[in-house]
Amino acid sequence: MRSSFLQGLFQSIAKRGRRMLQRQPAFGIDGVDMPALSQAILSGRGEASGTALASTLLEDWKRLDQSGRLSFFQHLASNFGPDHERIAASLAAYQAEPDDAQAMALHEAAEPRRQELFRRLNRAPRGTLQLVAMRAELLGLLREHRELASVDRDFEHLLASWFNRGFLVLDRIDWNTPASILERIIQYEAVHAIRSWEDLRRRIEPADRRCYAFFHPALVDDPLIFVEVALTQGIPAAIAPILAAERSPLAAEHADTAVFYSISNCQAGLRGISFGNFLIKQVVEDLKRDLPYLKTFVTLSPAPTLRKWLSGHANEDQGEVVLSDAERSALARLDAPDWHLGEDADALKPVLMPLVAWYFLHARRGDGTPVDPVARFHLGNGARLEQIDWLGDVSERGLGEAAGFMVNYLYDLRHIEENHELYANQRQVVASSAVNRLGRRANA
Amino acid sequence: MRSSFLQGLFQSIAKRGRRMLQRQPAFGIDGVDMPALSQAILSGRGEASGTALASTLLEDWKRLDQSGRLSFFQHLASNFGPDHERIAASLAAYQAEPDDAQAMALHEAAEPRRQELFRRLNRAPRGTLQLVAMRAELLGLLREHRELASVDRDFEHLLASWFNRGFLVLDRIDWNTPASILERIIQYEAVHAIRSWEDLRRRIEPADRRCYAFFHPALVDDPLIFVEVALTQGIPAAIAPILAAERSPLAAEHADTAVFYSISNCQAGLRGISFGNFLIKQVVEDLKRDLPYLKTFVTLSPAPTLRKWLSGHANEDQGEVVLSDAERSALARLDAPDWHLGEDADALKPVLMPLVAWYFLHARRGDGTPVDPVARFHLGNGARLEQIDWLGDVSERGLGEAAGFMVNYLYDLRHIEENHELYANQRQVVASSAVNRLGRRANA
Amino acid sequence: MRSSFLQGLFQSIAKRGRRMLQRQPAFGIDGVDMPALSQAILSGRGEASGTALASTLLEDWKRLDQSGRLSFFQHLASNFGPDHERIAASLAAYQAEPDDAQAMALHEAAEPRRQELFRRLNRAPRGTLQLVAMRAELLGLLREHRELASVDRDFEHLLASWFNRGFLVLDRIDWNTPASILERIIQYEAVHAIRSWEDLRRRIEPADRRCYAFFHPALVDDPLIFVEVALTQGIPAAIAPILAAERSPLAAEHADTAVFYSISNCQAGLRGISFGNFLIKQVVEDLKRDLPYLKTFVTLSPAPTLRKWLSGHANEDQGEVVLSDAERSALARLDAPDWHLGEDADALKPVLMPLVAWYFLHARRGDGTPVDPVARFHLGNGARLEQIDWLGDVSERGLGEAAGFMVNYLYDLRHIEENHELYANQRQVVASSAVNRLGRRANA
Amino acid sequence: MRSSFLQGLFQSIAKRGRRMLQRQPAFGIDGVDMPALSQAILSGRGEASGTALASTLLEDWKRLDQSGRLSFFQHLASNFGPDHERIAASLAAYQAEPDDAQAMALHEAAEPRRQELFRRLNRAPRGTLQLVAMRAELLGLLREHRELASVDRDFEHLLASWFNRGFLVLDRIDWNTPASILERIIQYEAVHAIRSWEDLRRRIEPADRRCYAFFHPALVDDPLIFVEVALTQGIPAAIAPILAAERSPLAAEHADTAVFYSISNCQAGLRGISFGNFLIKQVVEDLKRDLPYLKTFVTLSPAPTLRKWLSGHANEDQGEVVLSDAERSALARLDAPDWHLGEDADALKPVLMPLVAWYFLHARRGDGTPVDPVARFHLGNGARLEQIDWLGDVSERGLGEAAGFMVNYLYDLRHIEENHELYANQRQVVASSAVNRLGRRANA
Repeated sequence: MRSSFLQGLFQSIAKRGRRMLQRQPAFGIDGVDMPALSQAILSGRGEASGTALASTLLEDWKRLDQSGRLSFFQHLASNFGPDHERIAASLAAYQAEPDDAQAMALHEAAEPRRQELFRRLNRAPRGTLQLVAMRAELLGLLREHRELASVDRDFEHLLASWFNRGFLVLDRIDWNTPASILERIIQYEAVHAIRSWEDLRRRIEPADRRCYAFFHPALVDDPLIFVEVALTQGIPAAIAPILAAERSPLAAEHADTAVFYSISNCQAGLRGISFGNFLIKQVVEDLKRDLPYLKTFVTLSPAPTLRKWLSGHANEDQGEVVLSDAERSALARLDAPDWHLGEDADALKPVLMPLVAWYFLHARRGDGTPVDPVARFHLGNGARLEQIDWLGDVSERGLGEAAGFMVNYLYDLRHIEENHELYANQRQVVASSAVNRLGRRANA
Repeated sequence: MRSSFLQGLFQSIAKRGRRMLQRQPAFGIDGVDMPALSQAILSGRGEASGTALASTLLEDWKRLDQSGRLSFFQHLASNFGPDHERIAASLAAYQAEPDDAQAMALHEAAEPRRQELFRRLNRAPRGTLQLVAMRAELLGLLREHRELASVDRDFEHLLASWFNRGFLVLDRIDWNTPASILERIIQYEAVHAIRSWEDLRRRIEPADRRCYAFFHPALVDDPLIFVEVALTQGIPAAIAPILAAERSPLAAEHADTAVFYSISNCQAGLRGISFGNFLIKQVVEDLKRDLPYLKTFVTLSPAPTLRKWLSGHANEDQGEVVLSDAERSALARLDAPDWHLGEDADALKPVLMPLVAWYFLHARRGDGTPVDPVARFHLGNGARLEQIDWLGDVSERGLGEAAGFMVNYLYDLRHIEENHELYANQRQVVASSAVNRLGRRANA
Repeated sequence: MRSSFLQGLFQSIAKRGRRMLQRQPAFGIDGVDMPALSQAILSGRGEASGTALASTLLEDWKRLDQSGRLSFFQHLASNFGPDHERIAASLAAYQAEPDDAQAMALHEAAEPRRQELFRRLNRAPRGTLQLVAMRAELLGLLREHRELASVDRDFEHLLASWFNRGFLVLDRIDWNTPASILERIIQYEAVHAIRSWEDLRRRIEPADRRCYAFFHPALVDDPLIFVEVALTQGIPAAIAPILAAERSPLAAEHADTAVFYSISNCQAGLRGISFGNFLIKQVVEDLKRDLPYLKTFVTLSPAPTLRKWLSGHANEDQGEVVLSDAERSALARLDAPDWHLGEDADALKPVLMPLVAWYFLHARRGDGTPVDPVARFHLGNGARLEQIDWLGDVSERGLGEAAGFMVNYLYDLRHIEENHELYANQRQVVASSAVNRLGRRANA
Repeated sequence: MRSSFLQGLFQSIAKRGRRMLQRQPAFGIDGVDMPALSQAILSGRGEASGTALASTLLEDWKRLDQSGRLSFFQHLASNFGPDHERIAASLAAYQAEPDDAQAMALHEAAEPRRQELFRRLNRAPRGTLQLVAMRAELLGLLREHRELASVDRDFEHLLASWFNRGFLVLDRIDWNTPASILERIIQYEAVHAIRSWEDLRRRIEPADRRCYAFFHPALVDDPLIFVEVALTQGIPAAIAPILAAERSPLAAEHADTAVFYSISNCQAGLRGISFGNFLIKQVVEDLKRDLPYLKTFVTLSPAPTLRKWLSGHANEDQGEVVLSDAERSALARLDAPDWHLGEDADALKPVLMPLVAWYFLHARRGDGTPVDPVARFHLGNGARLEQIDWLGDVSERGLGEAAGFMVNYLYDLRHIEENHELYANQRQVVASSAVNRLGRRANA
């Protein structure tokens, strides 16, 4: 039922959004140059006809070509930063009397004027949506234009506050969801591509499939992030049976395990603002409530950098781990096309599984965190490394990136806090005893 | 139709809110002392089980008595302010290299740690609602506990950002609105009290009455501000006919004027965050679109400090204006009970009208703005002082506060910007020529 | 949640209804006399512009005064009955060949032409609503105009088909229900009058109160029938504690009993079409599902004809039962005002309880069914007579109609069918052993 | 906005439907044989646990195989017809006193008992849906089992009453419609097949496309009939540009013409119950209101039997019309594949156009109505034959059935009634003067 109301909700907001788009700029202001307009919005004029001015600026911005947009961002970087004179005054006052009140004055004085500009732009109809789109554009320019980093920082600060988890609404995505939203699910799926509407339907309609997304009221019918879930008996060790076109669905109440097999961010303009942690935990809670027989909540996750790490260690002896001959020879075989279809492919399993377990347990970056980015995300959320899956993903991508390996991370809400603390404070990778046993290497 | 969807929307959110309230604290954390809990929320632990910790703190806070709540606020004031060591370091760095990047670092260093705490509390289910309630409580304590002013400033900063006009949704209130919302309209009406459900119905059900409110998605079914509108032929000069129990409604399409006769804020915890300006302008735009025959948009406003000002000048000769004998004698008569029912009451009109016009045009406070608070609000929005109404409100309150006078302010969207600028920059009270003529006094 | 969607649903339908009301008659037909119009609707013309003609007739009808409406009904009675020529032909054919096909032809030939007229009128926007209103008017005329009985029969036949239980939707009424619906609940409550909005709120808002109504999609926001439910611990024996202004609500999950204490029909125009049976059983099923701890489903019912029956037997010895002296003397005391407040009122209890039990178990009408109409309803539904309540309703009405007695009927879904059969086939009043024991009289 | 609420409405009803499907049969009745069950439902028992019995029968029916279903229908035909004894009695009474009251008694006596059975089955959750499915099955059996015709007649009678236009709700279908409904649109489109989700999107998403459907509250999310509309400038003469994958949409407010280019019935079980007439007229009214610049409402219709008629007259001289040599030779060329792509194809136009106009104006069936079924539908609705389109549909089907011809019928609400009367009473085909001129043949 939850789904029902949220669908109604966001459809309605979507319609409202669309209606607003068709509106005329309200007070007849147009053709103003953008720096002047930005200035006007920040000035007193903004108070009388603020939303109209903001709308105008946002409309004008959409009509700019890429170089115009770059100029606008550069203008924001140069001319809408903090007011150094005001800082100097506040700073002197703080030094004279370094108390909390002066600190607050200093804090306010040092705020870049862009932040107030963005807050005022946000008042326009669909302003939030536009600001997110603006930031997506800015992120694309950032690599070549480091001078825009400060503008991005202001965007990120405000967006993080506005997209606070408290404002997000969880909605179930199913076959009754409007097509306009479903097409975005197809388009945004980043882990296991959705190839057609039929493929989509297989992921959301059967009784043993779920899909949930976070939405934000200001972003109309555009999801922020979504997760695909399979209900199973036991922890699955491969993705193909889950995505199979032909299979008999399980009755939901016969499942004991919920498998998070794909999680995708949707909004480029919200990069750096994390929703995944909240989404998974909320879905775990909701599933527990709706399906009390579910006992286990795990992911079925890719290992996107595993193959690259293995290659580094197979080719040279510079790695953190000294390879045995057997390992070296096993790694060499991974380059052969369709190696996993070979008769003796399974002979590689006892050689590679311990090495891969070692990778997940011990391979680290300079800052002490695991090499694997997916591991960093789930361990950081307080999940436990539960199982390593041999030939879990034999798609071209799965073989190419991870030699076919997949991983299960376990979300046990009773333990996520202690897991998280061990990980955060001591960089410890909390793992099941099976994985720990597997990862014990003589030569490590 | 707008109303239809928003009602659905907020009803649903309300139900969701209520459902969430019934949830158990999720991860079994309880009985923790609030300072420790606050600390935990800000620390790394907050990342793993953040929303659960936040919920716990908010639940615990509700169970505190008033002195406990005061202690909590004082704790926030003393222990969750800015980090002065971090400021000192940033400050030194800024002085060494006073550029935008260092200014940003300084800005961040000087942010009170309360702000991040509040952002994290906001992640809890119904967190926003709770924070607004917390601030309402805080505002009550503020007069006697000035040490809490810094806490209030942080609340106000965050709430102003979260309740940005871009996140507000306008909804029409009518007789199909859920009773739970209507009872709040009854309760919050601050200008012309609603005495019963029948009285309410007379203000929202007839074809020539409208009521609109701003809602925020996180505040479930609680309006932020609402405005009551009468559709009329011509500008009304008195409130009684509008509130009359017995009257024949006008067909909406026969009206040429929309009268904003009452506007009330609802949320004590959002004091200082202004919605009225946006609300009036949005309603003007919506009414123009739905009822294209409407040509005039005016208020019918009280003058809450007029009588007090008149008294000041009637009793002594110290005022800004030298009163004539006629005026002095007229003012003296206002103390008699039911003076307005006297046979010769109308004889006072030509004496008092110019004086009152002068009050609206010229009586100023120290900062150069008008004495009348309602005038300040509407003139600041860019409205024009249109008409002074003799015996516009002969209720006890109307006579007591304003000698029966009311005022109409005109909202003409084509002119609000220039009106606003004249007012904001030159403190000029833009008025109709009729009022200007009326206010010309020889002795002023 | 059910309530949430249905509210949305019917609010929306209500809005649609209202929008339709504002529409202009579509094809410019007007000023036609109603007999001609009725004829046109039934003729070929009705096919091209049928809904427009139907709308016109319904609008015209509303403008008629009472005598005009009577004439119209009489016209329907005289001129839109069956076609006797057609019957004669079909009848001859049937007699020649009395098979199913000829019977069907006869059935169709004998259908009054009014039925097709009503079906075509129903095509107009809000046609169903209008036809129900028309029948309400007709029922008022029926007593003095028996010639209209045939018109009423056609109305009843069609309405019974259109208001088939399969088309009804159950909605929960609570404090989030639109005021426009709540005011009808106040107005329609027929058992224990609702005196104010506060009184209403006490019946629908607390955690241990429920109210459900049946709605029909074509009747917009007008309920058909509603039932008020109290959740309690144990079977209550009096109404006052349930309606009390001051009481501490029970948490719903602590209740073991659901008490149906008021059930009211809303639509005069649907008289004779029974919804109560379906409503109670549906609510029992829904409550069982939502609140699994509920074990007992009972009514707390009035006994509207008890006092009258008792009086009959107290005054003369002609009744079905021979009264003892003690009974005779006890009955005599019931005429004293406030007898129930007397010190020795309870002394009457052992005397009257068996007599009242006998009334419920054995007092019959000519057709063998119980004298008590409420008993007939619940026993006919398969409920069991569970308990007789001494001083259950000491309101003026309760004392006046039932000497303060109330009754509980038990709905046990496992037994309703056999109870119903015993009642329907053998006129047996199925009762609890306690009531059966109570009702055993030596002299009966 | 209309669309918004109806979507919400039917989604909700759909969810409710689905929830009900998952319910357990309520009172534990199961395994009963269907004849007995049917009998029980009609008997007194049906009153106590009627909906449970009805659910059981409907569930049991679904589990039957085809021969079981046939047996059940045959059982209904043989054993649930009218009660001939009761007829005989009523008949005698009627003959004794042939008045309206006796006619009514006869009408009721002659009603097949199936009708009451169906009304009681309809009380079950989703009963209406099931009955429609039952009739769809029955219609499939009817050709080979004429003994079931009486059962079908009862189905049709009740369904026609229950699906009265007054109970239908119009909904707009667009890209925000739930996928579960859109897939049915794809599946049910009967005129110009929808080949993919992209093809569907081109018909419902652009600003100059509309799609509307009638829904019935009891049929959850399953449309009854839908119509596809293109907004254009001027009357289009070919379908290909409307269905083209690549085209620039027109702003809706720039269109002057609405073209109904496809209308499809969805429910096999509702055959014989006509919705198309109501749908077109309702959509015309709604479009007029929403887009006041629309002046012309036409169809772009197929001529499904034209080619067959032409062939009949090309091959032999027995037709109603004597063909010229030129016509004969032109008709012969239509058999060549891709004849329309030939260089001189347009030379056929002046030869064939008058012949085709004649066909539409004069070719009749035995009952005097036009040979063309689409013409019968639109002329019967009061539309006017407006334009004959040369090479309007050069798809395989269009060439095969209609030699590429299409037709426009004009809906002018001011004239539909007189058009309809001329057609209904005098079999006159009302046509534009252009078509009338074209259709004048010397030899006709």
